[in-house]
Amino acid sequence: MTAAATTRQVAYTGAGSLRIEASAPVPPAAGQVRIDVAYTGICGTDLHIFHGTMDGRVNPPGVIGHEMSGRIAELGQGVEGWEVGDAVTVMPLARCGECPACRAGHSHICHRLNFIGIDSTGSMQNSWTVPAETLVRLPSRVPLDHAALVEPTAVAVHDVRRGDVQPGEKVVVVGGGPVGVLIALVARHSGAEVRLVELDPFRREVAEKLGLTTLDPRGQDVTAEVEAWTGGAGAAVAFEVSGAAAGVATAVDVLAVRGRLVLVAIHSAPREVNLHRFFWRELTLIGARLYERDDFETAVRLIADGDITVGALISRISPLEQAGEAFAALESGGGVMKVLVDCRSTEGTDAR
Amino acid sequence: MTAAATTRQVAYTGAGSLRIEASAPVPPAAGQVRIDVAYTGICGTDLHIFHGTMDGRVNPPGVIGHEMSGRIAELGQGVEGWEVGDAVTVMPLARCGECPACRAGHSHICHRLNFIGIDSTGSMQNSWTVPAETLVRLPSRVPLDHAALVEPTAVAVHDVRRGDVQPGEKVVVVGGGPVGVLIALVARHSGAEVRLVELDPFRREVAEKLGLTTLDPRGQDVTAEVEAWTGGAGAAVAFEVSGAAAGVATAVDVLAVRGRLVLVAIHSAPREVNLHRFFWRELTLIGARLYERDDFETAVRLIADGDITVGALISRISPLEQAGEAFAALESGGGVMKVLVDCRSTEGTDAR
Repeated sequence: MTAAATTRQVAYTGAGSLRIEASAPVPPAAGQVRIDVAYTGICGTDLHIFHGTMDGRVNPPGVIGHEMSGRIAELGQGVEGWEVGDAVTVMPLARCGECPACRAGHSHICHRLNFIGIDSTGSMQNSWTVPAETLVRLPSRVPLDHAALVEPTAVAVHDVRRGDVQPGEKVVVVGGGPVGVLIALVARHSGAEVRLVELDPFRREVAEKLGLTTLDPRGQDVTAEVEAWTGGAGAAVAFEVSGAAAGVATAVDVLAVRGRLVLVAIHSAPREVNLHRFFWRELTLIGARLYERDDFETAVRLIADGDITVGALISRISPLEQAGEAFAALESGGGVMKVLVDCRSTEGTDAR
Repeated sequence: MTAAATTRQVAYTGAGSLRIEASAPVPPAAGQVRIDVAYTGICGTDLHIFHGTMDGRVNPPGVIGHEMSGRIAELGQGVEGWEVGDAVTVMPLARCGECPACRAGHSHICHRLNFIGIDSTGSMQNSWTVPAETLVRLPSRVPLDHAALVEPTAVAVHDVRRGDVQPGEKVVVVGGGPVGVLIALVARHSGAEVRLVELDPFRREVAEKLGLTTLDPRGQDVTAEVEAWTGGAGAAVAFEVSGAAAGVATAVDVLAVRGRLVLVAIHSAPREVNLHRFFWRELTLIGARLYERDDFETAVRLIADGDITVGALISRISPLEQAGEAFAALESGGGVMKVLVDCRSTEGTDAR
């Protein structure tokens, strides 16, 4: 708790602008815990925020970040089952508990969801105070840098579950960023055969090193390749993780009759969709957002058991003071997969 | 079999053009039956054909029509279980049996499906010869004019089944033509509460007479109405049966979290779809095409038992010689629901 006097945070202050500043750790209220944050990953959503397109929700200045790991530093009154020093990650969702979604048991898509790290203060700081009910326990064998990828892995677990991927099914993942690769890994672990479609050669290389077969949509006719691979049937499941109009078209085109398209990426603008093919082949489009607690716990288990290798996805770990450069590296696009910010309070860290 | 010498057919000869002509009844080959056709309904697809947009499939001149009823006139060699005089309708699908869809058990969406009445000769004639395996038995208590609506009712049964409509669920049907009204009736019979959205006052009136509650999208804010009706939750299931871009938008907008949108209408052009809402509310879009044998048999049962009242949907019955006027009446849009062509060989019929 000596950190209290010297803590810092990365404040998003408006489009394209971050400020590293001193912070005052928030003492945990009843039912809360304060966490010494170890690592915070930068998510695609954080980039959207950085571009200024989500200021209505973030209400800058504010601290963002929600893919994290750390250790409990302080317990608020009435918190049971947790000890100072426990390694944790956070499922950053606070539901209202009263809306039709919550009442229907879908609180992860609560009408008034507070996504912690977007709608309220996030983890890109040394010290973060959250409700104890958001904590997810980390086994000691999970390194804390790897643990910062539990959240995107939970996304992948949720997406594969929404797609009801079955052993032996042929699956196409369109988009090979961190979430796309994680979906491919989780689907493969579920027994599916997978093809990953990705434009960026570096990202394809990372995926190939993880044993995934990739397709380059610039150099290859993806639909024809999938047609040949599936003996003319098409894929059972496609995941649209690219966020691009062309990605939607590819995901629709590769599917077999009764194929399922899991929509993972955020498409802010309406997209032209070939609805005729949905009719013709009786396809299903399945929206997938975030995760439920089961998904988070499955993600921890997959990483802890080595079923999913997340370490290979970490391209760079930047100290908190260099968060700006970390965002810039991700912006540049090529040559990078997941970037973590080292949020530990000691400077001059030796990274992993 | 005295009909043989005097039979007539309605030939589609190219965009906007029909010709009433003499025909030669086709003797049934082994495994086939020849049917004395009673009635043939005009379907939306028949109108598309009439507009010339499906000439690649129809290959005019050709006889179209696939919503029908009649009696067996002649049995081909080896046909068992049927007698001359049996009242029948036809499930007008001939599958290849070998493609990936057929092998996966989805032969109704066979890659090389022969839709009889589009891809091959249809029922808008006195005498029609089809494979015996397409026959569906009609109980004697079903009037033959009503029986011509078994096929669109089978579409509705299939659509409701694809949407997995559950008792007590709130359902919005967008588009109140014959298939939309039939979906509303089948969904209601499944225990759902239904709102039917339709622009045309005549069609709304027909639906209201069947006890359905309708919404007029010109005079009412459909999304707000559904929001109020569902206590802010939104509908569990929406059926898009309008074929219009605005219909797609409405069907997406009215849905609750995890809502299902069953896509029934044919959208020849790609449509802009609010994919963000699919993501945000974890919606599902389900393509639905045609029917399976179970759907057809359920449709016969629903009509025979009076669970679905199809007679009220018949706006007009035209003699075969006036098929052109019948198409024109449907083209005019207003004031019409289902139009049947009386295909019985005696002229001067007293209709029903």
